[in-house]
Amino acid sequence: MTRKMWGLIPVLNCSQLLKLCAPQCKPSVCPITTPALRADSPLRTMSDQAFVTLATNDSYAKGVMVLGQSLRNHHTTRKLVVLVGPHVAEPCRDALRSIFDEVCVVDVMDSGDAAHLSMMKRPDLGVTFTKLHCWTLTQYSKCVFMDADTLVLSNIDELFEREELSAAPDPGWPDCFNSGVFVFRPSNETHEKLLAFCSENGSFDGGDQGVLNSFFNTWATADISKHLPFIYNLSSIAIYSYLPAFKQYGHDAKVVHFLGKVKPWHHSYDAQRGEVKGHSPSPDLCQLHPDYLLMWWQLYAKSVLPLMQQAYGDTPFSSGFVEANEDEEVKLHEDAREQPAPASAPPPQISSEERKQRWEAGQIDYMGADSFANIERKLDSFLK
Amino acid sequence: MTRKMWGLIPVLNCSQLLKLCAPQCKPSVCPITTPALRADSPLRTMSDQAFVTLATNDSYAKGVMVLGQSLRNHHTTRKLVVLVGPHVAEPCRDALRSIFDEVCVVDVMDSGDAAHLSMMKRPDLGVTFTKLHCWTLTQYSKCVFMDADTLVLSNIDELFEREELSAAPDPGWPDCFNSGVFVFRPSNETHEKLLAFCSENGSFDGGDQGVLNSFFNTWATADISKHLPFIYNLSSIAIYSYLPAFKQYGHDAKVVHFLGKVKPWHHSYDAQRGEVKGHSPSPDLCQLHPDYLLMWWQLYAKSVLPLMQQAYGDTPFSSGFVEANEDEEVKLHEDAREQPAPASAPPPQISSEERKQRWEAGQIDYMGADSFANIERKLDSFLK
Repeated sequence: MTRKMWGLIPVLNCSQLLKLCAPQCKPSVCPITTPALRADSPLRTMSDQAFVTLATNDSYAKGVMVLGQSLRNHHTTRKLVVLVGPHVAEPCRDALRSIFDEVCVVDVMDSGDAAHLSMMKRPDLGVTFTKLHCWTLTQYSKCVFMDADTLVLSNIDELFEREELSAAPDPGWPDCFNSGVFVFRPSNETHEKLLAFCSENGSFDGGDQGVLNSFFNTWATADISKHLPFIYNLSSIAIYSYLPAFKQYGHDAKVVHFLGKVKPWHHSYDAQRGEVKGHSPSPDLCQLHPDYLLMWWQLYAKSVLPLMQQAYGDTPFSSGFVEANEDEEVKLHEDAREQPAPASAPPPQISSEERKQRWEAGQIDYMGADSFANIERKLDSFLK
Repeated sequence: MTRKMWGLIPVLNCSQLLKLCAPQCKPSVCPITTPALRADSPLRTMSDQAFVTLATNDSYAKGVMVLGQSLRNHHTTRKLVVLVGPHVAEPCRDALRSIFDEVCVVDVMDSGDAAHLSMMKRPDLGVTFTKLHCWTLTQYSKCVFMDADTLVLSNIDELFEREELSAAPDPGWPDCFNSGVFVFRPSNETHEKLLAFCSENGSFDGGDQGVLNSFFNTWATADISKHLPFIYNLSSIAIYSYLPAFKQYGHDAKVVHFLGKVKPWHHSYDAQRGEVKGHSPSPDLCQLHPDYLLMWWQLYAKSVLPLMQQAYGDTPFSSGFVEANEDEEVKLHEDAREQPAPASAPPPQISSEERKQRWEAGQIDYMGADSFANIERKLDSFLK
């Protein structure tokens, strides 16, 4: 009923929506699973606290399933909640229900700040703006939001000891927090303030991270306890930016964040060989750090794919798996619903140890003019 | 006298030196200028506090002179101290004396942790290990250390309100501080502990940043007042990593840090045209941020080069200036003493606004295999 009503309302930005809505009208979330205790949850004493994530389409839904399963595998005692966009297919929602305590459909609202969004050239970030809706989950006293492209490596329930807004620094501009993992306290009042703030100020990066950093603008200076250790939101970029620090501190990593345009589900997986395609670091590089991407695919293959197969039945869907034939050619399993994944990156050229180490240590002249030209070639390969 | 004595001692690493030295023996610093008040210093009420920097060779000495002059231009009320390695030429020291209150010769000690240093492939970082000697400047109650590749954009005397060890986050691994700018309290006891720590633990990155982060290991978690805002150590890399944040917060930048292998003095300058060679961002990029590199060269040309010319007299030296002849060919001024600067990067290829913005916004798949290949080509151009 509520879903149908919201279905009639076109997609509006914050400013437009605020003009239409009475003050007491808040974007609706619709639990479509019974929030009952799950039989397979060993401990459920902290039922008023939850991990919350967001799936805006079927691709991100895969990431969300892997994330949810990684939290289960590490025996979280908190509830698992996923916000899903209206375009997520019904079988996907069924699979999500197998992992999450609550699956809530949320109407997608872009930030609408087209100038900023176009600057970032990341329309998918605009969609994640929807995650501000998580503040309306007032059935929980405290929550931890985690992006669909994160993967949990150990139990992180201790995050619930932190207060709003706790987050880890963003390696790009470290006085900003990265909004891929944050502790918050659901509150309709805060949610309304956030929406008003958006409509008045927009987002400096066109996405939720800009909004949240402007709203919670004392994070960098006020309270060290609200600085989550970086190992709770370890962006894979940081491994290469400062490799010695990763080698020193990375073994304690608790959450990996696959930042960047190419996500784990954009790669493919050869289950027979246990290899991720389109990501073939040299053996030396593999020794230097655990292959988080491989861990993602192994978890997907073991725990998520069976749920997808059960939910889809005979209906074809994109598994992301590849089969190697005798001629070493690979072909993707049939992909009936989604856009094709970006072309896999070619295997790296063999190079001297010295040069690789320079690269790994971040000794790259990012400001150098020909570095731009090189990156342009890289972008060319994506944009084709 | 003291200088001659130290000149007889070969270059040793911390561990070797500690074995040779009695506990009370500390590495010697030798003031070779009278620490009297400078006539051109308007205020010198805070004479027990100092900005401290380090020049290990004639190239870094240029950076140090620009840094010192930028502090003078912004009317610092604190003393300026430079530690110089034994290889810095006498005319360079003369020029340094024109800017700094104290010029102290320090014996260079590499960290000697060859395995780590080779991993970083940055032998120049090993040399900066020498900066630990700054803790012996006990004639000052509090100091701010600044690397030779930093440039001050406004008065930053407020940094002396902070306590040891205050520093800004490193964008590569933001739970580490960047050791290019830090507040410290000179103390022979701390210095001895630092040397002992080095000999026992080495440095996880082969340089001073690894040592200092391991020694002051509660920086990330203990006291928010010891987190200097990122604008006090804005690494130029961050501009491109998260451009929207730079556009939002960068106008308040107080210190720019030219991180990376290629330093400002590795470029050259066409004074007639007011152009830096080997760094030709597109016009669009110039509009996006002030050209810190150009600022560096303008300051060098106006205030540092005259001091160098006076100190060197008729002796040729590397000015870094180029002259454009009628055929647009450029030739470097004679370079009698130094290694040739790295080859200037070629001008960037013309590209679409969209692709450039993607690059500027950091939407690059650093983990992508062909990105490595591209960077390898970049490195090739340097290693030729």
